[in-house]
Amino acid sequence: MKGAVLYGPRDLRFVERETPTIVAPTDAVVRLAATCVCGSDLWPYRGIQATTQPAPMGHEYCGIVEEVGSSVRSVKPGQFVIGSFFASDNTCPNCQIGYQTSCQHREFVIGAQAPLLRVPLADGTLVATPEIPPAHLIPDLLAVSDVLGTGWFAADAANVTPGSVVVVVGDGAVGLLGVLAARERGAGRIIAMSRHSTRQRLARDYGATDIVTERGDDGVAQILELTQGVGADCVLECVGTQESMQQAIRSARRGGYVSYVGVPHGVEFKGEELFYTHVHLHGGPAPVRRYLPKLIDLVLDGRINPGKVFDLTLPLEQVAEGYRAMDERRAIKTLLRP
Amino acid sequence: MKGAVLYGPRDLRFVERETPTIVAPTDAVVRLAATCVCGSDLWPYRGIQATTQPAPMGHEYCGIVEEVGSSVRSVKPGQFVIGSFFASDNTCPNCQIGYQTSCQHREFVIGAQAPLLRVPLADGTLVATPEIPPAHLIPDLLAVSDVLGTGWFAADAANVTPGSVVVVVGDGAVGLLGVLAARERGAGRIIAMSRHSTRQRLARDYGATDIVTERGDDGVAQILELTQGVGADCVLECVGTQESMQQAIRSARRGGYVSYVGVPHGVEFKGEELFYTHVHLHGGPAPVRRYLPKLIDLVLDGRINPGKVFDLTLPLEQVAEGYRAMDERRAIKTLLRP
Repeated sequence: MKGAVLYGPRDLRFVERETPTIVAPTDAVVRLAATCVCGSDLWPYRGIQATTQPAPMGHEYCGIVEEVGSSVRSVKPGQFVIGSFFASDNTCPNCQIGYQTSCQHREFVIGAQAPLLRVPLADGTLVATPEIPPAHLIPDLLAVSDVLGTGWFAADAANVTPGSVVVVVGDGAVGLLGVLAARERGAGRIIAMSRHSTRQRLARDYGATDIVTERGDDGVAQILELTQGVGADCVLECVGTQESMQQAIRSARRGGYVSYVGVPHGVEFKGEELFYTHVHLHGGPAPVRRYLPKLIDLVLDGRINPGKVFDLTLPLEQVAEGYRAMDERRAIKTLLRP
Repeated sequence: MKGAVLYGPRDLRFVERETPTIVAPTDAVVRLAATCVCGSDLWPYRGIQATTQPAPMGHEYCGIVEEVGSSVRSVKPGQFVIGSFFASDNTCPNCQIGYQTSCQHREFVIGAQAPLLRVPLADGTLVATPEIPPAHLIPDLLAVSDVLGTGWFAADAANVTPGSVVVVVGDGAVGLLGVLAARERGAGRIIAMSRHSTRQRLARDYGATDIVTERGDDGVAQILELTQGVGADCVLECVGTQESMQQAIRSARRGGYVSYVGVPHGVEFKGEELFYTHVHLHGGPAPVRRYLPKLIDLVLDGRINPGKVFDLTLPLEQVAEGYRAMDERRAIKTLLRP
């Protein structure tokens, strides 16, 4: 089998890899209907995160179960399933309160940019759809696997409730789906910070009521002007840099909520500064598993179209071009067809 | 009038000061029934916070209204009142959602270690009791003004709910009243971190079910052992140093809540570390005003005795000894009688 392997900065190759098999009795092997490139894949791709040895890539997936280990009970071969980037048992104390990405037995699911994927802890990790979904819903269901689930967590962790004034920092796929999640949670106003016209259009389509193109101090000044000097109730930080985090915190009202869902790179909070902002801060690797059943239902009911974030679709063997297009911001997110 | 003035590190003098008068029509002047020394007063007293000019001290107070400005409507001379360390209008957008310490018109109330105190924004700041309270309740009502309100906010911001497993880091008066607040909010288990026997006793008296004497890594290990490796649902950080903050975050379960209510001194959070802990973080200057009516009722009903944290009572003119006793940890908290 051939799959995507990162050898070093911007050296992404589609090469022969070992075909996944059942290793533990709790495993499943899934034949992927589609996979994609994540914004977080760009950190090592750009060399900001070191690659010490050739690394199979990809952690977003949906498809048909090919084989299961002897102890797997909740899914069976032939079913269409969706899972998240951390395998989780869904029974430990951390899972039980909805933090499956902090599962005591979590394992990172890696190597999904390939035709076949081994998923550990299949019973806890995978959610099957009632039937094999129609082909046109595959992009939407693939989005549920990570990027929608992450945007959803961002809105949840930022306490978006009916009527909330929401700011979304970051116009990548997660930020855009944070907009959608805020709309679904009843936000009264959704301000998307974006300077790219195609992303602005999609943000509007997903429910953004205002667009702010400025960044940094100017961006914060705009948010304050739009909110009568008060700031936003909820701010979703969907980038992961010091600049975007500062912008997020300073856009929030006193007593407001700031969520952050991308791995922070070089971000530091000064205790005293944070103290006087009075913000609530919550984030971490999105526990997508918590939301999978609900989000799958929303997609199958035709209520949401998260798959629109895929504005480039390529055959899997062109995965390197998929990375390049995202790196150069020619594409929001690349879907790959095995 | 004579009051406490800090001239430099450990140079606290009881000296002649200007007698407070009505300056703005929204002011009140209060004749204090009692005042006290705050843990936060020790930061400048110890020189950790610089004193650039002689500074009148004290911000905790209750007493009888002596005079009010022409626009004050909600309190009148002769009433017994309690207020918080930030004067607030209680009507601005920040006040309306309960963050009166971030009031758009807030003013720090300072100079309370004296017989008389000017309180700005009296209508928004002061809460009157239905009647003049009996003398034996004065310490309890004084505690409401800051230290109980702050402990209460710590428990609220850490999301203490019925059944919660709670850790309190810090055995100062705020931490001890955080224990009391956690008990009142129905915590299932309250672990107080303290190595001082008198403070341990008071913690037990206020509802602590367990005492952990270790600090740092050893303290965290103890918490994990007491919680089957999971960590606490809620952690109240009531110190404000890097060590105590680290201890607090590492004592929390994944997805747990950490509150911090003392001004952080030299505290920094690494974004990536915080991200993987999955904690909720919330703190800031406690919006005591939010809780005043409820806490006053609890005291007047005889349900709580927060005044027990005052284990040293001195006449006001001995205020310097009151500071020394707290600095040397001979006293938990000093009450001063003008």
